[in-house]
Amino acid sequence: MSPARSLVVGVLGGMGPDATVDFFAKLVAATHAERDQDHLRVLIDNDPTVPDRTAAIRGTGPSPAPRLAAMARGLIAQGAEVLVMPCNTAHAFADAIVAAAGDVPFLDLIETTVAATRTRLPDARAVGLLATDGTLDGRIYHDAYAAAGFEALAPAVDDQRRVMAAIYAVKRGHAGAEDAAALRDVAARLAAAGAEAVVAACTEVPLLLRDGDVVVAGRSVPVIASTDELVARTVVVATAGGRGG
Amino acid sequence: MSPARSLVVGVLGGMGPDATVDFFAKLVAATHAERDQDHLRVLIDNDPTVPDRTAAIRGTGPSPAPRLAAMARGLIAQGAEVLVMPCNTAHAFADAIVAAAGDVPFLDLIETTVAATRTRLPDARAVGLLATDGTLDGRIYHDAYAAAGFEALAPAVDDQRRVMAAIYAVKRGHAGAEDAAALRDVAARLAAAGAEAVVAACTEVPLLLRDGDVVVAGRSVPVIASTDELVARTVVVATAGGRGG
Repeated sequence: MSPARSLVVGVLGGMGPDATVDFFAKLVAATHAERDQDHLRVLIDNDPTVPDRTAAIRGTGPSPAPRLAAMARGLIAQGAEVLVMPCNTAHAFADAIVAAAGDVPFLDLIETTVAATRTRLPDARAVGLLATDGTLDGRIYHDAYAAAGFEALAPAVDDQRRVMAAIYAVKRGHAGAEDAAALRDVAARLAAAGAEAVVAACTEVPLLLRDGDVVVAGRSVPVIASTDELVARTVVVATAGGRGG
Repeated sequence: MSPARSLVVGVLGGMGPDATVDFFAKLVAATHAERDQDHLRVLIDNDPTVPDRTAAIRGTGPSPAPRLAAMARGLIAQGAEVLVMPCNTAHAFADAIVAAAGDVPFLDLIETTVAATRTRLPDARAVGLLATDGTLDGRIYHDAYAAAGFEALAPAVDDQRRVMAAIYAVKRGHAGAEDAAALRDVAARLAAAGAEAVVAACTEVPLLLRDGDVVVAGRSVPVIASTDELVARTVVVATAGGRGG
C-alpha cells in the first residue's frame, strides 16, 4: 500500500509476559504515526511455557533452545522479516535462533545494549549489571562488555538474591515499592564499587528501575535499559530495511 | 507440561496498536501466575495496515474483510485455539473471521460487552455509546443492545466529532488531557439524556476514560469498557477450555 513498506517485526516473547508487554508498548510509542496504517506490523509469540532459562544455564532444567527455534520458524512462516527477543537470559541460546532464522536477521539484545552503552558513555570503563542469575552465570554480558573494553560488575551474593527476588516479583505480577527500592539500593552499591552506569540487563528490571532513579552522593548514575535500546534499534532496522521494499 | 493446559489465544490486532497493547497488558495482568510458565500463551498479529474500518462501512474505502480472514488463518496456522479482536468497529466484518476460523471459536467483542452490561446492570434500560462513526453507522451496538432489551444512545453530531477527534488522537499517540475531558463531557451529556451507563464501545476509549471518571449531579455513572470485558471472557474461556487438554 505504501511506497516505503517497513519490515514485519517478529517477537519471541513471553519471557516474561510483562517484559513483552513493556517492549511492545514502547515499540508502538516509538513509532510516530498519523494513523493506524503508518505503524509497524508486529507479530508476537508470547509463549510463557518456554523452559526456564536460568535453570537451563545452570544445568538444572531442560534447554529452551528447541522451543526458541520453533518460535522463530513459526514467526517467519507467518511473515516476520526481522526477529527480536526481549529477554536477556534467553540470549544464551541465541545460536539456535540464528540457525533457525536462516536469512532473516535476528537483532541481538546483548550486542545492541553493549553498543548503545559505548555510544552513550564513550569514556566509561565499568558498568554494573542488574540481571538474572542465569545471565550472570552464563557470563552473557561479562564477555560482551569485555570485548567492548568495559569491565562488568555483578552484585555481591546477598544483593544478587534481592535482584532475583525483584525480577520474580515482576514475573508474578506482585512487584511493589520494596522491590523497586531493593534494585535502587543494589544499583547504588554497584555505582559505589565503580560502575559508571547501571545496565538493566534483564527486561523485567526497567519495569521497576528507570533512568534517574539511581542517585549516589548527589550524582545521578545513568540506567541503560536493554529493552529501550532494543526498541530503538528495532525501529531503525525495520524502517530503514523496508524502504523501497 | 501442565496437566491443565490453557487454550492458545490468537489476537487480531493493530486496530489500533495502542488498543492492542492495552488488551495484551490487561490480559497478562488478569492472568494470575506464580512464574512465567503459568501465564497464557498469546499469539498477536498487530497489523496496522488493515484497511480503515469506518471508511469501509461508509463505502469510501476497501473492505478489511479479506485481510481479517487472512489474519485469522495465519494465527490458527501458528497454533491459535481461540480468537479475539480488540477493535469494535472491525466487528462489522466478523462474519469473514468466523468463516475463516472454521472450528476455532471467535469471542465476539460486541456480544461480550452487551452480555456484561446485562450482568452488571440488570435493571438498566438505556446506555450511551462512545464509539467510532463506523460502529455507529453500522449500527453494530445499536442492534446488539436492542436485542438485549436496551436502548443505545449515540452522541449528538457535534459531540460525535469530538469523540472521533479523541479516538484519532490516541491512534496518533498525541492524546492529552483535553481529549480525556472531551470524552468525559460527551459521556456526561449521554447520561443527562438518559443513559444509565456509558459504554467504551471503541478500544481506544478506555485509554482516556475509566470507570469513575463520569460524574453527573454528584452521581458516578458506570463506564463499561469493551476491552476489559473481552479480557475477562478470554481468561475464562482460555482457562476453562483448556482444562484436561
